[in-house]
Amino acid sequence: MSQSTQIIGQRLKRLDARGKTTGETKFITDIKVENMLHAAPVYSKVAYGKLLGINTDVVENDPDFVAFFSAKDIPGENQVGVILEDQPLIAENIVRYVGDSVGILVANTAEAAQRLSKLVSVKIEAFTPIFSIDESRDAKENLIHDTNLACQHQVKRGDPEKAFAEAVHVIEARFETPFQEHYYLEPQGCIAFVTPAGGIEILGSIQCPFYVQKAVAKALDIPFSKIRVEQAPTGGAFGGKEDIPSETCTRAALAALILNRPIKMVYNRITDIQLTSKRHPFQMHYKVGVSKTGKLLAAKIKLEENAGAYATLSSVVSYRSAMQALGPYVIDNISVESNSYYTNLPPTGAFRGFGSPQAAFGHERMMDVIATELDMDPIELRLINIVKLDTHTLTGHHLKSSVGAEETLKTAADACDWNHREMSQDERWKTGYGVSLIHYGNCLGAAGWFMDGSGVKIKLHRDGSISVAFGLIEMGQGALTVVQQMTAEALGVEPGRITVLPTDTDQVPDSGPSVASRNVVMTGNAIRNAAAKLLPVLKEAAAELMQCDLNEIVLEQGKISNIRNSEMLSFSELSNYLYLSNRPMDVLGWWHVPELDYDAENGTGEAYFTYSYATQIARVKIDTYTGRVMVDKIWASHDVGKAINPAGLEAQIEGGTAQGIGWALTENFKVVEGEVVTDNLTTYLLPTALDVGEIESILVEDPEPEGPWGAKGIGEPAIIPTAAAIANAVSNALGQSVAQIPIIPEHILEMVGD
Amino acid sequence: MSQSTQIIGQRLKRLDARGKTTGETKFITDIKVENMLHAAPVYSKVAYGKLLGINTDVVENDPDFVAFFSAKDIPGENQVGVILEDQPLIAENIVRYVGDSVGILVANTAEAAQRLSKLVSVKIEAFTPIFSIDESRDAKENLIHDTNLACQHQVKRGDPEKAFAEAVHVIEARFETPFQEHYYLEPQGCIAFVTPAGGIEILGSIQCPFYVQKAVAKALDIPFSKIRVEQAPTGGAFGGKEDIPSETCTRAALAALILNRPIKMVYNRITDIQLTSKRHPFQMHYKVGVSKTGKLLAAKIKLEENAGAYATLSSVVSYRSAMQALGPYVIDNISVESNSYYTNLPPTGAFRGFGSPQAAFGHERMMDVIATELDMDPIELRLINIVKLDTHTLTGHHLKSSVGAEETLKTAADACDWNHREMSQDERWKTGYGVSLIHYGNCLGAAGWFMDGSGVKIKLHRDGSISVAFGLIEMGQGALTVVQQMTAEALGVEPGRITVLPTDTDQVPDSGPSVASRNVVMTGNAIRNAAAKLLPVLKEAAAELMQCDLNEIVLEQGKISNIRNSEMLSFSELSNYLYLSNRPMDVLGWWHVPELDYDAENGTGEAYFTYSYATQIARVKIDTYTGRVMVDKIWASHDVGKAINPAGLEAQIEGGTAQGIGWALTENFKVVEGEVVTDNLTTYLLPTALDVGEIESILVEDPEPEGPWGAKGIGEPAIIPTAAAIANAVSNALGQSVAQIPIIPEHILEMVGD
Repeated sequence: MSQSTQIIGQRLKRLDARGKTTGETKFITDIKVENMLHAAPVYSKVAYGKLLGINTDVVENDPDFVAFFSAKDIPGENQVGVILEDQPLIAENIVRYVGDSVGILVANTAEAAQRLSKLVSVKIEAFTPIFSIDESRDAKENLIHDTNLACQHQVKRGDPEKAFAEAVHVIEARFETPFQEHYYLEPQGCIAFVTPAGGIEILGSIQCPFYVQKAVAKALDIPFSKIRVEQAPTGGAFGGKEDIPSETCTRAALAALILNRPIKMVYNRITDIQLTSKRHPFQMHYKVGVSKTGKLLAAKIKLEENAGAYATLSSVVSYRSAMQALGPYVIDNISVESNSYYTNLPPTGAFRGFGSPQAAFGHERMMDVIATELDMDPIELRLINIVKLDTHTLTGHHLKSSVGAEETLKTAADACDWNHREMSQDERWKTGYGVSLIHYGNCLGAAGWFMDGSGVKIKLHRDGSISVAFGLIEMGQGALTVVQQMTAEALGVEPGRITVLPTDTDQVPDSGPSVASRNVVMTGNAIRNAAAKLLPVLKEAAAELMQCDLNEIVLEQGKISNIRNSEMLSFSELSNYLYLSNRPMDVLGWWHVPELDYDAENGTGEAYFTYSYATQIARVKIDTYTGRVMVDKIWASHDVGKAINPAGLEAQIEGGTAQGIGWALTENFKVVEGEVVTDNLTTYLLPTALDVGEIESILVEDPEPEGPWGAKGIGEPAIIPTAAAIANAVSNALGQSVAQIPIIPEHILEMVGD
Repeated sequence: MSQSTQIIGQRLKRLDARGKTTGETKFITDIKVENMLHAAPVYSKVAYGKLLGINTDVVENDPDFVAFFSAKDIPGENQVGVILEDQPLIAENIVRYVGDSVGILVANTAEAAQRLSKLVSVKIEAFTPIFSIDESRDAKENLIHDTNLACQHQVKRGDPEKAFAEAVHVIEARFETPFQEHYYLEPQGCIAFVTPAGGIEILGSIQCPFYVQKAVAKALDIPFSKIRVEQAPTGGAFGGKEDIPSETCTRAALAALILNRPIKMVYNRITDIQLTSKRHPFQMHYKVGVSKTGKLLAAKIKLEENAGAYATLSSVVSYRSAMQALGPYVIDNISVESNSYYTNLPPTGAFRGFGSPQAAFGHERMMDVIATELDMDPIELRLINIVKLDTHTLTGHHLKSSVGAEETLKTAADACDWNHREMSQDERWKTGYGVSLIHYGNCLGAAGWFMDGSGVKIKLHRDGSISVAFGLIEMGQGALTVVQQMTAEALGVEPGRITVLPTDTDQVPDSGPSVASRNVVMTGNAIRNAAAKLLPVLKEAAAELMQCDLNEIVLEQGKISNIRNSEMLSFSELSNYLYLSNRPMDVLGWWHVPELDYDAENGTGEAYFTYSYATQIARVKIDTYTGRVMVDKIWASHDVGKAINPAGLEAQIEGGTAQGIGWALTENFKVVEGEVVTDNLTTYLLPTALDVGEIESILVEDPEPEGPWGAKGIGEPAIIPTAAAIANAVSNALGQSVAQIPIIPEHILEMVGD
């Protein structure tokens, strides 16, 4: 399946590198427009209660006060839930978390908006809040919504009970993972404008422009055709700008529409951390039956998620964690239940991996627990059970292509010389190795298939330069560069000819959300679809100009030749000829994920159309005196099908792994009575370069026939195995099972019995 | 060929009416952007000379002075000629008219830019200027460019000399028409921005965004893909914003690029009138041989045009005036020469009709001169010679469809009761009737065929609303409304669903210029092309939903039914189903003019793919005491193929006719030593409502099979016959041949021998 490529596989420099490193790039906070006002949210300081009234008397005489808007000002539906209709755009009756917005305050300056928003008096009758999964699940009254169960998904395959009976070992364990804050460097921000025709334009730091368009349409009762959403340069997102911009942008648009002036709203860091969604905390219970030799026979898995006050993307998290609950292993008898429960905490939503890092923590810690129980080498146990070509996943998906799981495991093991791993321990320092193996279903999967299509528009100019508009976005992952690279490859031209346009809902088909590591696969295939329309036109024109047969034309690196003689034509000449011969030079491309054979009731079959695979092995050094865990090195072997831009891919692996290290070790998110207390970098510790250690990226290329040039997604696989690998390494070093993260020094000291 | 239509033919209210009448619409002058500077041109006060130097010392200490840029600052080619490469973006060596820009001055305010631009010292060694066509044609030295002949076109058909010998009457006459100033209400204006990627964005009051893109690319040496041009609401253009924005926008872009700040440049009225292009003055000599009964046998026509300092669109004017030089009459032996000569006057370029009103003045005055000579009724003479189906035009174009010439003549004659026209004369007041019959080749014609294609992008949203982007523009002619209307008809939905987007080079294929009455024909056909791609998808989805056969689906007025039963589906439901079934919902449409069988050397064959026809009859009352000509009424009968929006069409006829009245009677453009002295509304008299009289529009619909729903262009035909009709009416009232316009009171008094 591997294809010969010219541009794909080259290490291209990022198109946005210069602007972002020099500070030339203008983010929302840098952008001023004429006549602009500033907004800030007014939100509940109470975790759960009934909204009795809002009094703005105290701010109304401030010279910088302009207006305050609440739920009653919404002309359309007061509803902003991304999947479930459970979330008002502005709370009207009940507030469900500290941060639930009850209004938006508009002022002449950003400073005044934030200052005055704090002074508005919000009267709330407090209820008894629910913070934990257990409380939520067991509650009989005072339910947060009609039910406390936000959503659930399951897998039911084979006969686990029968298989447990036949197993030699039945092992159980319980694991927990915590909140994680996205901590994108640029907080949420947007500017909303009213168009002359009474429509809305949004410029925002956003991940899903089409979601924002939908949210504005619904709440402001404006047709989609009058709403344009453009993405501004976005300083990180990691899933955190999937759901939240639907709230922020729509609230800003509401104020803009009423005041007929541009409204800018940029959250400060404290507001951002308190109000916006996080990674779901998980409680996981694994019961696994294995044969004498370590073959997985039966599993019963219960995953429980803390969804916070509103579901937002919990359904996706619940689906994905269920589908991947036991990792890339063959097992025929399995039952998985994955339930998300509402609590009075900030909503949890999309975060790089969508529940996968949590499930990976569960299944990979579990594999090590089993290996320990059976006294087997952890890699050996995994190799016995690993999925291969022509086997089935835990959902019963028959794998027919691109199954690089084993190769990632073997290459990672080789790279770290697993069989001769240095285990030197001294009294103070303990060294440990941990392995973690995962699979990741590409794109939205069966539950989101209905919206799993994406488009591009390619515009050839008469000077031979090319513009590409795509429907997904750049949020730091290197999308612009791979889009440039894939377009160049598809059209047989040099990357330098290609300008990638900012994402704009007016430009391109609704391409769904920029999530689920979709960009390379979706946009790459859409580019190929567009190129398949443009290339025949180019070749026909070239054949006319060169007076040869259509099939004799070769387009490569911006040069057009024919196989007959040495005549050469530049791409610019050909483009100009196309223009002069009155041919249309714009093409649209579209691709949607192939139909999936999936049984939603039992959660079985083709949960996703293909899977990325990865193995990460961590070597940690533990200071038993201080309890500090140092990540010495991580070997990260990733099956990406085909590396489009190896430089960008390695950066993704390094970034994802670093974020996984933070989740595993340093980021200790704390909420007290519903209020986030770790709301800055002094208390919420992101890993620095010194905390990350060495990362060795290994690229495994097992091409996926449905992927563009064989490629699969990498954005999320990069973070998924990391925490489990570190926890396994710590368990290995200390000879004790680590059941939860973050592994803070206090826990280590407890484990070593200080 | 007539087709049954639902929306086409309805009198729709203009989409831009409210904004433009209330003042809500923001034109360039109303738009401020952060960090913006202002520019004004520094130009020659000498009509012809050698540029010796520019000294900015006197302005450099002004606190508002920012920068001055001249030709040496241009990174690319110093060339902005639209067709010929004869015009520097900024004059470097020779200045050729009062107004030739030698630089651009940038200041902190618009006021300062204009004030300081006047103070820059420009040292020029003056040459002897050439102002008239005769001087230019006859000059042997000191040529303005390599030659003084800017361009020429001809028609050579049959054997005129032989036919003259056989003619009973050979009649000669000479006519002259003057400059006309566009006097769009909004002067030239734009804002140029530098994009983060080092590209250029232009927002401008412009007629041809793709021309501006090309001009910026060439002068600034930036690929097309990094240049985006968006049209701002445009307060009139009439051809005057076809060529000039390539100069103004590119100069602003130059300053923006160097200073890395947004640059706004809006001409004040005096600058606008002095610097920008006008309608070509014509000198015309007609020699026509006719039979005893008035049949046209032979013609020799010489048209000479004053092109001003640079050719800009002279070539189009010369081509079109040659192709239409004897109007819609059958003649087999004809020779036409149409020559444009450079002079040291402001360049003449595109102006509603492109030489057609001038040629119409020639041929329609000539027909009346012939009628007088033969003592025939002017309408009878025209009916004897008029083109009909299956006859040939003067270029030998065999007419096979949509020839409404005769019907326009007959309906106009009937409407004014020609045969019983009231000719009451008293000592002071003289009444006269004049008829004028024209044809107008639609779109760019054979000479511009290579760029005569246009595109649209239609985007269906999941809520059933629709966005349309088109490549031509709204400049006051009602384009937005007919685009909305044609899209609604093509898709079988209500017009209210459709939002027409502002024109933006990033959005749509290069659609050529918004000129030559192209919009309805080009955009309409492109819409039909796009709809032909979208309708099958809609029907397929509807058939799935309604479980019936594809062919049973009927889409009408936003309701979907099937012929089998009374089941109904709303367009919104269908759109949402389309979205959920993962179908692409954006389509591109494209149309280009059919290939033309044209012999460029002899100017014979299919000069255009089809023609609009019109007859206007004017009744004038002349006050022989004051010399004032009052237009009492104009009957305007226009064959438009099919009226898309009759309300807009009538407005076009009224506007064009009013502009023709101004050219014929009140607008007396004066230049003294190369300087325009009629540079305001006190000296350059646009006709007011009181000057225009009554206009009765008559719509003739002879459908053109290649036109969308049978439609042909109207924008320019509306002005073409007017001046000739008025001059014929004056000649008729006074019994003397009027040979030139404007017919000012002094001329009348001279004619009546006061």
